[in-house]
Amino acid sequence: MFFDDLETRNNDKRIADIAEQLPKQIVRAAALSGYNEAFQEVDASAVKTLSDLALLPVLRKSVLTKAQTVGNVLGGFNARKISDFAHIFQSPGPIYEPGGIDKDWWRMGRVLHALGIGPGDIVQNCFGYHLTPAGLIFESGARAVGAAVVPAGVGQTELQVRAAADIGCTAYAGTPDYLKVILDKADQMGERLSITKAAVGGGALFPSLRAEYADRGITCLQSYATADLGNIAYESPAMEGMIVDEGVLVEIVTPGTGNPVSEGEVGEVVVTTLNPDYPLIRFATGDLSAVLPGQSPCGRTNMRIKGWMGRA
Amino acid sequence: MFFDDLETRNNDKRIADIAEQLPKQIVRAAALSGYNEAFQEVDASAVKTLSDLALLPVLRKSVLTKAQTVGNVLGGFNARKISDFAHIFQSPGPIYEPGGIDKDWWRMGRVLHALGIGPGDIVQNCFGYHLTPAGLIFESGARAVGAAVVPAGVGQTELQVRAAADIGCTAYAGTPDYLKVILDKADQMGERLSITKAAVGGGALFPSLRAEYADRGITCLQSYATADLGNIAYESPAMEGMIVDEGVLVEIVTPGTGNPVSEGEVGEVVVTTLNPDYPLIRFATGDLSAVLPGQSPCGRTNMRIKGWMGRA
Repeated sequence: MFFDDLETRNNDKRIADIAEQLPKQIVRAAALSGYNEAFQEVDASAVKTLSDLALLPVLRKSVLTKAQTVGNVLGGFNARKISDFAHIFQSPGPIYEPGGIDKDWWRMGRVLHALGIGPGDIVQNCFGYHLTPAGLIFESGARAVGAAVVPAGVGQTELQVRAAADIGCTAYAGTPDYLKVILDKADQMGERLSITKAAVGGGALFPSLRAEYADRGITCLQSYATADLGNIAYESPAMEGMIVDEGVLVEIVTPGTGNPVSEGEVGEVVVTTLNPDYPLIRFATGDLSAVLPGQSPCGRTNMRIKGWMGRA
Repeated sequence: MFFDDLETRNNDKRIADIAEQLPKQIVRAAALSGYNEAFQEVDASAVKTLSDLALLPVLRKSVLTKAQTVGNVLGGFNARKISDFAHIFQSPGPIYEPGGIDKDWWRMGRVLHALGIGPGDIVQNCFGYHLTPAGLIFESGARAVGAAVVPAGVGQTELQVRAAADIGCTAYAGTPDYLKVILDKADQMGERLSITKAAVGGGALFPSLRAEYADRGITCLQSYATADLGNIAYESPAMEGMIVDEGVLVEIVTPGTGNPVSEGEVGEVVVTTLNPDYPLIRFATGDLSAVLPGQSPCGRTNMRIKGWMGRA
């Protein structure tokens, strides 16, 4: 029923696991040239909890961008040689991000699993594969759950309808609005599609649009991922906020600072990833959200945040 | 020096290997609904040589297209369930093709290896990843030789120059002409790129263009691959014709028939793939070429064909 046992760990177990994993990640980061200056006074091995993390400096995107220089486009924040990554992406800025193809490197498997996508499903992946990573991020999630993929990108909508109808695609991945473009085009073309699951991200999902999808028999769940971090949080069928991914730690801070806000208050999302290839520590996303107290009725036990609440 | 031992097999060994592999592939094909009718009088297990193959019917693209129906878009020529493939692609027609991500599924590794691409290289992959398979075909080749990839697609040339310069890409994959577009744009932008190897396909490479690339210090080799078959033949540094890939058998026939032409004559390229997932037997490509007698000076021992000589 769950993607893995991590999702249903009790609080003590999760805290204990983090206490084991986090110091290793901080030590790993501290050894990288990107962190040399910022971490020189940090006792990396003593950072075991979210509260310990809060004493470390926040990593702003502007600092990352500035550190990214010609021939060293990951700015010394990478724990593998640039040519040893499977992919190097370029997002607007430009800012560069590495990508991997090891099993569920982007941690999107649990997102698609929560939506019920698995073996037997064929996902029409309408995120772009070119330069920016979104397409390959969702591709990686489909691999992790054993679904087939039609790598479709955005646009050429008539061809996309043709493909979805002919192939019998059962799931959609893409921005919240593009699915409607496809469905409307399908109506015009007199085609009935078999898509019943939609994994959406990269834009706001308005309740009216979700309701329209539901009316068409399509369950639509959102995830919150970024090009630097991969999956951060995702909706489950319970649809109460977004559950934080098991491979990251999320803090909500007063925008522009590294200071955690009081419980439940709106603030900037700051993420620490446990990915050993590219350890981003207290990376300020620039996005606003807030912690949602309590636990998801779906049984997943991790902290929840409200959805995207704007830019900091 | 070579991608694997298959490339330097002597003639007897290659014939013996084919005699072992080919009947298995024909048996596999004969069991598929796509071949039921055409193969009902064939003694599949007795097809051991190129001459034996010549007695089987040719599979025309029109037959394949017609067999591809809604929900059965591989027309019964697939040996795996559609949803068990990693990818389903849609090429113009529309015609559908399956794709895999098992190691070197498209057999492009030897193409990139022949050009000297390997670990440490970063390939700017300017084939498109959307709907059609070219991008993921070359992606798969880069994986097979251990190179990193910038999945770039075609267009947004200024951003591509920025990426190539900032990242330090060492190799290009794409159509023969688009590299010049990138290089000219780089000149305009005052950027000097580090690309020294170009794996090109999907269009004609004029000798003048190859010479211009050489003048810029870029070695450019062609390969001949299709969306249905993957790699068919490729150039090596010897640059004498194209060496047939070890995972396919190539015949040259009188266009529109299944009858092999006399040695050295121009005719239609008919390909049999040994790929167990999608066994295409005597697939007529519609392309014209001719066998080039003798062996490549580079040491690869397989049959060679002249380049693409037009459409049948």
